[in-house]
Amino acid sequence: MKKSLGPGTILYPAPVLVVGTYDGQGKPNVMTAAWGGICCSDPPCVAVSLRKATHTYGAMVERKCFTVSIPSERYVGEADCFGITTGRKTDKFALTGLTPVRSGLVDAPYVEEFPFVLECRLLQFLEIGLHTQFIGEILDLKADESVLPEKGWPDIEKIRPIVFAPGNGFYFGLGKKLGKAFSIGRRFGK
Amino acid sequence: MKKSLGPGTILYPAPVLVVGTYDGQGKPNVMTAAWGGICCSDPPCVAVSLRKATHTYGAMVERKCFTVSIPSERYVGEADCFGITTGRKTDKFALTGLTPVRSGLVDAPYVEEFPFVLECRLLQFLEIGLHTQFIGEILDLKADESVLPEKGWPDIEKIRPIVFAPGNGFYFGLGKKLGKAFSIGRRFGK
Repeated sequence: MKKSLGPGTILYPAPVLVVGTYDGQGKPNVMTAAWGGICCSDPPCVAVSLRKATHTYGAMVERKCFTVSIPSERYVGEADCFGITTGRKTDKFALTGLTPVRSGLVDAPYVEEFPFVLECRLLQFLEIGLHTQFIGEILDLKADESVLPEKGWPDIEKIRPIVFAPGNGFYFGLGKKLGKAFSIGRRFGK
Repeated sequence: MKKSLGPGTILYPAPVLVVGTYDGQGKPNVMTAAWGGICCSDPPCVAVSLRKATHTYGAMVERKCFTVSIPSERYVGEADCFGITTGRKTDKFALTGLTPVRSGLVDAPYVEEFPFVLECRLLQFLEIGLHTQFIGEILDLKADESVLPEKGWPDIEKIRPIVFAPGNGFYFGLGKKLGKAFSIGRRFGK
C-alpha cells in the first residue's frame, strides 16, 4: 500500500554535478547542481537546471558553454561547499584549495582534482519555472588516467561518484555491483 | 593529467527510471530509461528522454501523462528486462510477474512492487535529436509505508535505488552515507 506524499522533487539517485563557468570578470566559478542528467544520445547532450538567482546562470547565458565535473566521494565536502556558497561573493577555488583548469575546447574551467569531466557547448535553454534548463552538447569527455582501464570506458568504482538523496538531503557513496545492464534482464525471455 | 575520450553520454550516477504508460489499446506498459532527472523545483518537474522508436513515446504523446517508478535493487533483473523488451510485442508485467496499478491521479500505471513512484502530467516535450525529452509536472509522490519513517521523507537506505553506470553498462547498489547535504561543506566557511 502506497502513501501519498504530495507533489515534490524527489528522485533516487540524483547526481552531484559541479558546473564550471567563467563569470563576467573572467573568474573561474563552480556550482553544484543535482537537477540534471544526460538527455540525448545523438547529439550527446547533458541537461542541467539552474535558478536565475545563481551566479552561474548569467555566465551560462553569456559564454554559451560550461563544463560538468564529477566529484569523487573524498571531495564530498568541497562539492557541498560549491552548492552553498555563491561565486558572486566567494572565490570557491581559493576557499577549498581546488584547482581550476581552463578547458582546451570550450570557454569554461573544470576542476582538476575531480576525476571525470564533460566539456559542453550550450545548445539551448528552456525556462520551466523556478529553474531554467540548460542543454549542452558534450564535445568531449575527459578522465583521469587513474580511473581508466587499459582500454575502454572509465571504471565507476575508481571514480567513486557521489549519490545525492533529495528529501532528507544526504550524500551516499557507490555500493556493490548488482549486474550487467542489457543482460541480467534476459532471464525473463522476451 | 586528464585523457580525452571523445564525445559521449557518460555521467555518474545515472538513475534507473521505470516509465509507466497505457498504450493505444489501454495495455499497461513500462520502459526503463536512464536519461532523466528532476529539472525544476517549482513547479516540481521531472524530465525523461525517450527515442521515438519506443512504444512508450506514442503513449506519452497521446495520453499526456506518465508515472516514474523507482525500482529497488532486488528488482534489478526486472528493471533491466523493462529496458531490453518492447511493449509493442511483449506484456512486460505478465513476463516479469510484477503488478500494474492504475494511478488515481493520472491516466497511467505504476509498478506496485517498486517502493517509490512519481505521478506526472506532461507539460511539454522537446525534440533534441535521437531523443525527445518529456517534461512532466510531478502531481504526487507515493511511497511504500515500509520505506517511510514516522514523519518526513522516504529513507533512501530502505528504498535501495539502483545506480546505473553508462559506458561499461553496470548496475550498482547504494553505498555508505557520506554526510548531510547543505551542511558538510560549511567547514570551508564562506
